Formats: sequence, structure tokens, C-alpha cells
Amino acid sequence: MVTPNLFVVVDPRPTNAIPCADLAREFGVHAVFTNAYLAYREPTLRDAVLKAGSIHNHLGFDGIVATDSGAFQQYMHGGDLKVSPEEIESFEESIGADCPVILDVPVQLEDSREIAAAKVEETLTRARDNVKRRTAIDRAWFGPLHGSKHLDLLAYSAREMAVLDFGIYAVGGVVKIFNQYRFDLGVEAILTARQHVRPDRPLHVFGLGLPQFFALAVSCGADTFDSAAYALFAKEGRYFSLEGTRQLAEIQEFSCCCPACSRTTPTEVRQLAPREREVFLTRHNLHITMTELQVVREAIREGTLWELVETRARAHPRLLDALRVAGSDKYQQFFDHHEPRIGGRGIAYTGPETLNRASIRRGTRAILEDYTPPTGRNLAIILPEVDTSPRVSPASRQWVGEIEQSLGVLGPRLHFLHASNIFGILLEELLDSYPFSQSMAPIHPDANQINLHLTILTSFLKKYAAHYQLAAVFRPTHYTSEHGDVVPLPTHVLDFIVPGFLNTIIPFRIFAEISELAGWVRANAKPPASLEDRGER
Amino acid sequence: MVTPNLFVVVDPRPTNAIPCADLAREFGVHAVFTNAYLAYREPTLRDAVLKAGSIHNHLGFDGIVATDSGAFQQYMHGGDLKVSPEEIESFEESIGADCPVILDVPVQLEDSREIAAAKVEETLTRARDNVKRRTAIDRAWFGPLHGSKHLDLLAYSAREMAVLDFGIYAVGGVVKIFNQYRFDLGVEAILTARQHVRPDRPLHVFGLGLPQFFALAVSCGADTFDSAAYALFAKEGRYFSLEGTRQLAEIQEFSCCCPACSRTTPTEVRQLAPREREVFLTRHNLHITMTELQVVREAIREGTLWELVETRARAHPRLLDALRVAGSDKYQQFFDHHEPRIGGRGIAYTGPETLNRASIRRGTRAILEDYTPPTGRNLAIILPEVDTSPRVSPASRQWVGEIEQSLGVLGPRLHFLHASNIFGILLEELLDSYPFSQSMAPIHPDANQINLHLTILTSFLKKYAAHYQLAAVFRPTHYTSEHGDVVPLPTHVLDFIVPGFLNTIIPFRIFAEISELAGWVRANAKPPASLEDRGER
Repeated sequence: MVTPNLFVVVDPRPTNAIPCADLAREFGVHAVFTNAYLAYREPTLRDAVLKAGSIHNHLGFDGIVATDSGAFQQYMHGGDLKVSPEEIESFEESIGADCPVILDVPVQLEDSREIAAAKVEETLTRARDNVKRRTAIDRAWFGPLHGSKHLDLLAYSAREMAVLDFGIYAVGGVVKIFNQYRFDLGVEAILTARQHVRPDRPLHVFGLGLPQFFALAVSCGADTFDSAAYALFAKEGRYFSLEGTRQLAEIQEFSCCCPACSRTTPTEVRQLAPREREVFLTRHNLHITMTELQVVREAIREGTLWELVETRARAHPRLLDALRVAGSDKYQQFFDHHEPRIGGRGIAYTGPETLNRASIRRGTRAILEDYTPPTGRNLAIILPEVDTSPRVSPASRQWVGEIEQSLGVLGPRLHFLHASNIFGILLEELLDSYPFSQSMAPIHPDANQINLHLTILTSFLKKYAAHYQLAAVFRPTHYTSEHGDVVPLPTHVLDFIVPGFLNTIIPFRIFAEISELAGWVRANAKPPASLEDRGER
Repeated sequence: MVTPNLFVVVDPRPTNAIPCADLAREFGVHAVFTNAYLAYREPTLRDAVLKAGSIHNHLGFDGIVATDSGAFQQYMHGGDLKVSPEEIESFEESIGADCPVILDVPVQLEDSREIAAAKVEETLTRARDNVKRRTAIDRAWFGPLHGSKHLDLLAYSAREMAVLDFGIYAVGGVVKIFNQYRFDLGVEAILTARQHVRPDRPLHVFGLGLPQFFALAVSCGADTFDSAAYALFAKEGRYFSLEGTRQLAEIQEFSCCCPACSRTTPTEVRQLAPREREVFLTRHNLHITMTELQVVREAIREGTLWELVETRARAHPRLLDALRVAGSDKYQQFFDHHEPRIGGRGIAYTGPETLNRASIRRGTRAILEDYTPPTGRNLAIILPEVDTSPRVSPASRQWVGEIEQSLGVLGPRLHFLHASNIFGILLEELLDSYPFSQSMAPIHPDANQINLHLTILTSFLKKYAAHYQLAAVFRPTHYTSEHGDVVPLPTHVLDFIVPGFLNTIIPFRIFAEISELAGWVRANAKPPASLEDRGER
């Protein structure tokens, strides 16, 4: 099974709005999740499944079938299960489930720490029993991880479960977190589980079915989900959209061209009998769901997953909050560890959250920590980055050329820094290296871009104060765009510099004319420094 | 015709990848744009169209048909047109075009101001001639507005054209602007045209076909577009997606479930003969295009157009730049004039650009300009806004209650201000008014949210320094969420206040405990002020 992917939840009873037989062909479904407990509890149904020879035959689905143990029922609806772990788990094996779930004890959101801890321990005990008891060896058992909002318990659960052999580890008890739009907590649960469970096994999230959250969940380390949301929402007249779920009653035009929507209109659908209306909505919701998985997988292949995550997060302020939590210092080490170091794709800036990406943090860290300025180039010239890379921008190339020419013999001592809207500063000798190359940000900066620039520039000058004799900024009023037009330079990150403050670090001035900049540099450059002065001892 | 809408460009020759007869039924197309010049130039084709009785019959399309005059051909491909305005415009009339275009003289992007001005004048002369010459009275003629990057010329063109009677005014000469991803210039062209042409007629944009730009163009005042991009991109193997156009060759899974994509796979499509491949891509691209128009129209009906615009802008940093230009001070008056004053929907914060919206600027202006603090309430208490509106948040209600209780007789003199992540501050008596009510922002602020808060708070205290005796901030470490959990208050806009500075305006302190806050307020509140002291003279 290609991941990330979804186990589509289906009823073992013949009540599904979409027959299981249609799922693979029409919707591209690879895997389903069904409820072994429901099948076990009803004698007629149990007999039918056993008689069919396998749950696959019973459902008429020949992809991967996962089975739930009844614990989820109990988690969602309460009540006592009249079944033991031994009974239901061996039933799951006997009906040929590819991915059975043990009978775990999910932690509820409102559970106190003590109750939660007891449930985690009970689940661990049952997990250990399951490992000993298993007979079929070709199954990928789900190992549920619990703790809910008690993230330290969830971490403990993940560590303890990781030493037991499960095919898939699964964050449980989060459905109600998602139902309450607490995506920030959802993200922390996924990140906590992913950091503490073994990295060589897939991580599943039980009950995650809101398509606009898929990209973020995947970027935090989730590999698979299961959900009945497509069907449950349909029962309530709710129509999935990546911009936010709508009520069918309120829709005038469909925002979708899936096979269901392109054959009808909202008015026609509202006139259907309730069951047909539900079938329509179920089909639409499942199309949206499965297509979003394709979008996520394509984004992973292309190296644009973060751009997708950041776009989808606009669907709800709580999703944006969740993205901001994922980008906080707390999780930087995790993301840094998992982000490719080389060969990545250039970064496209989508908003302040982009600056939290591991590749950007790594880039700015490289400039401030792992960097040695080039020997002898001790006159810093800071230029504005404009509409395209300084390597190809006609303006940048022209400015560098004119400044070098104006400064004559000082040319080899100039070090060009480009005031960047995405990395703070770009160093001329690193322009072609990942992640600095090919990245792109708006030329009209927001406050986070400005802050990053000020922080990086200040830290850079402080750190290398021994190397540079001075820093001169060129801030022209106009520039030549990549299309050859001479246009005004809009408000730039450079405009927020406080030169008086930086001047206390090293001699620092801002100029609007190259001739004035050159004059000041010439007047203030000391004769070629001795090795000691270059700060190279 | 419902707007916003697209005139789908079709060839008058029988070469279209999608037969015109299928456009309405399969794609929901209401209007097409075809080329009268091409039909006029080729005698056989001309005869066929005239023989058919109308361009509608010739195409087999019974919706609205617009016809181009040949000027666009000349704009895109150069060369001389061997036809006069009289000839082609009367041909357009004779074939029954619903929306004919005059033979205008488009300005090229590289045209100097002088050349551009001459072309604008020539187009105006031809427009005046057309108005005099027209015979059919039931047509909506397109009145092209030109100037390209010379926005003052475009404004002049719009003002002069506005006094002539045209059914639709149309920004011309912008295709190459869009082809170069200069969306900022595109936005300025649309805004300039919309501001200077008569407001009671629709504004069209010639050659705008990139779906991810529709929402922004519409929000800037465009009503209709026309484009052949869906077909031209298909010829080049390009596959539309709202996250950015892809090359078919690079696609592993389709990001779409339109009727074209859901019947096949990228591998299968790549194996098709070139013409079938083109047909597939044309169909997919047109589905995406028409669906995005439905999404835009639904967003307008729902009052969520800005949320959609801000989401789509993440597709490319240049789109984000364009959105930032549209949000700049230069265009605030225009947007303020067109944004509904009452009954709008609560605002969902998507990023720094949200703060430029007319309703937010109006809200903050109301607080700073059109506001009188309630008589006698001269002790300002500033509370953090948390996860939900202060009206319903258990934390906010509890804090207000405890502070009122602690301060006893001073209770009626307290004025509660909520430090807002979207409006800077919320005033207790305006909590239920639009736009303050129902708006929602991330609780984890970005730098623009912080800056807005600091600016508004400072300006507010300066403006009403005569009214308030003091301001006390309550900044607790924890709060009770809407779900009843006690959770840490994350880094808040309040944490960036410099109390020492504000204390120079009026007595100002920050407290982590209500008892300490109450003690300080009690110690510093002066006896009930006389009318003069309240600043009410």
C-alpha cells in the first residue's frame, strides 16, 4: 500500500451508502477498516462472515482490510463491551483481517491523569498478551498508543509499545480532539507519538478524516488514517470542501467537479429522497477525501509538501494555530532531523509560518554558526534582494558591477550580502547552494520577514565583527526588474534597519547612491589587514 | 449571465479539442469568445458563418457569444490586419455576436509612454466612431481600456471610455503581464480600470485564464474574463492545478477527480496519441477553470471571498505580492467604499494580509476615531483574548467577574478591553457588533498581529489619555479553554508590550495575579472625577 493513505471505514452490515465492491475501482481505495466487534456481536452476521471464508469475501473488497475490536465503539459511545480481548482478537484473526486492532482501552479527553495512566497501563498489558497469544504470523497488528491530551503519557505509551512487535502503531483517542477543532493538540499528539515510537514502522491516526488536515498530519509524521467522516458527515447533510465543510442546504453551486457533483445540481440533490441524498453526499465526500490523498502524495514526490500544508492551513484559524505549534521551537529538532539536507526544492514563501521550516532555520543557522567569511573580503556591501535571485537579477548584477568598478583596487576586498526576504541575508558565495538557491518570497515583506532580516543581520555583524571593517548598505529608489522595466523599489526589509544601532557594532551606513557609498567605503577601509586583524587566529 | 464568469475562447474553425456543443452541458459554460477576424479573413469560413445565419448556429452554441475583432491577434502575434474597423465591426454585427469587440489598438508591455498614449487615443477615436456607426441596438459592445503598465494612461482611457456607451468595459493588453507572473501589475491594472470606469457596468479582463488568480481579480472588481489558456496550456502538455500548473510528463497521480481525470491515469494519458492527450488536458483544464468560478461565486454568496483570495494567493509568491499590493494604503479607499458596512460575516484570519481588509481597518479606525469611552468607566482593565470570543470564553467571563468582585465599589468604573489577535483591542460594549463579533484568529500570533496590537493599544491610550486614570493588564499564566481545560496561555500579543513606555502616557502596569492588579487599581484610582476631569467638555 502506498502511503500516506486512508483506511476507509465501512460497516460490516450491508448498510453502506457506497457498496464496498465499488470502492477500489471508482474511488481508488486501497484499504478499508471495518468493525469486527459488530460482526462478532450479531450471531447472524457472525455466521455470514465466517461462512464467507474471510472478511474480504464478506465485504466484496479484495484490498487490505483492517478490523476494529470494539474499543472504538466504547470510546465514542460508552457502554460495556461483552467480549474479552482473547475472544475478539482471535475472531479478527479467524476472519482473515490483514490489520487487526487489539482490544485497547482508549483514554477520553476528559480523563484525569490518573485514569488516563491506568488506561495506558491496561492497554500495554493487553498489548503484551496479544503479542504472546497471536497465532497467525502474516498480520500487521495495530498497536494503539494512548494518553490523549496527557502528552507525557502518550510518549510513555509510545516508548513501551515500541518494544512490542506491532505492524502499525496508531495514535488513539483523538477523534474528539478533531471534532472540537483542537488541531493544535492533534498535531502535538501526532508529533509526540512519532518521536517516541520506532521510526521504522508506519504511524496511523485513528479517526482522522478531515481532508484539509491530511497534509499537516502527514508532515508531522502520520502515514495512515482511518475515518468514517465521509459517511457520517453525509448523514448530517454536510458537504466536504477544502475551504471548509458546508451544509448542503446552504449550497447554491457545487465547488467541485467530482463525478457525483458534475452530474447534478444542489437543487436536484435537495429534492432527492433522504437515502439518495446521503448516497450523493457520501460519494462526493469520499471523492474529495481520496483526491486530497493523491494531492498530498504528489506534493511529497515534488518536494512541495510544506507549501501544501501552509495553503491548507488557511481553511481555519485553528489549523493555522496547529501549524504554528508544529513550527515552534519545541519541535524544531524533530523536523530538522527529518528534512533532507541536500537536493531539496527551492522554497516558496507562503507566510510567516514558512520561516519556521527546518530548511530555512538550517540555512540561517549555517550563516550564523557554521560559517567563515572569505579571507580578505572584509568590506561588507549589503544590497537589496529584488524580484529574482541576485545571480540572475539584472539589477543585482548591475549594482555589483558598478560598485566593484567604483572601488577599483578594493574590489577583491568587497563581500556582497543580499538582504533577503526569506533567509535574512544571502551570502554571495552560497547563492547557488540549497536551500538558498531557487527560493522565492514576496518582495513586499510582512513583519516576520522584516524581523528575521533584522535579527539575522544584527547577529551576523556581531558574530563577524572582527572580520569586517565596515558595512555599507545600498538602498536605491528604483531597480531594473527581471523584465527589464525600471520600477520603484517597494518598501523593503532594508528600510527597517536602525543604522545608528548597527553602527555601534561596526561602522555602518546606508546610501541611496553608489558614488556616495563608494566614497565612504574608500575613506573608511583600512589598509589590507594583517592575518591577526582578520580574526583568523 | 451570472457573474463572475468566463467567456471560454473557441476557434471559429472546427479545430476545438472540445466541440462547442458540449461546453454548456458538460462544463456549465454560459458564454464563449470567438474570433470574428479569423472567420472574416477566410472566404470559405466567412461564407459558412453567414450561411449558418449566426455565429451561434455556426458554432453550435446557444449561450452568449462574444467576438474578437482581430486586435488581439495583432497584440499577441504582431503583423498587419488587412481589415478596417468599419468592415470587421459590421461583420461582427451581421453574424449576430452578442458581445462584439471594437477593433482597438492594444498597448504592448514594452511600449514607451508616448507610443502607449498614441494607441490609447487611437482606440478612443475608434470607440467614438463605433458608437456613432452601430446599427444593431441589442448588443453589448466591449469597450477596451488600454495603458498597460502606464497606469495613469489606463485611468485616462477608463475615464474617457466611461462617457461612451459600452455594454462591458474591458482591460486589455494584460495577457503578457499574466504570462510573466506580474500579478501585482495585473492587480493594479484591474483596480485602476475599476476605479475610473463607470461603476454600473461590468468590468472584463481580456486574456485572464489562470484559475488561481480568479478570486483576487474578482475581489479587485473584475466581473468577467476570457481565456484560451485551458486549451493553449493543454497543447503544451500543461495540467492545471490550483496549487500551480504541472507538466503532464511529471505527474504520477492526478490531483483532481474531474470527469476526465477520474476515468484514467497519468500513465495511460501519456500513452495516448498527441491529439487525444491534448483533448484530455483541455477537458481537465476547463473543468478546473469552470469549477473555480463556481467556488468564487459561492464564496461571494457566503461572504468568504477574502478568505478564498488569501488562500489562493499561497500558490505563488508573486500572487501573494499582488495581494499585498491590493492591501496597500493606495487602494484602501476603494475597498472601504465597496465593503459592506453591516451584516458581514465574521472574519477568519488567514495571515498578515487579513489585517489589510477593509472591515478590519474600519474596525480599528472606529476604535481610534469615532469612539467615545463610556462615561465614568475610567479605569481600563486589559485582558488577553483567548481561544474564543470574550463574550463566551469561560476564562474571560471568570476574569471579568473576579476583577469586578475584587474591586467592589470601583466595579462600575472599570472598562474592560480585550487584547485582540485580529483588531488590536476589543471594547467590551462593541463585542457583539460587526466586524468585531464572530471574527477568529490564531491564538499564536505572528509579528503583524503583534505590531497591530501594539500600535492600536498605544494609539488608543494616547487618544483617550484624558478619559482613563490608569490601565492595568492581566496576563495570567493559564486559562480555561472553551472545552473546560486549564491550559498554559501561549506567547500572547500582550507579552510584547513595553509597559515603561506606555506608563509615560498613563499609569500602566502588567499583573499575573488578580489580587495584585486589584490592589494597584484600588491604590491608584482617584475619587470619582468631576465632569471636567472626565474629558467630556
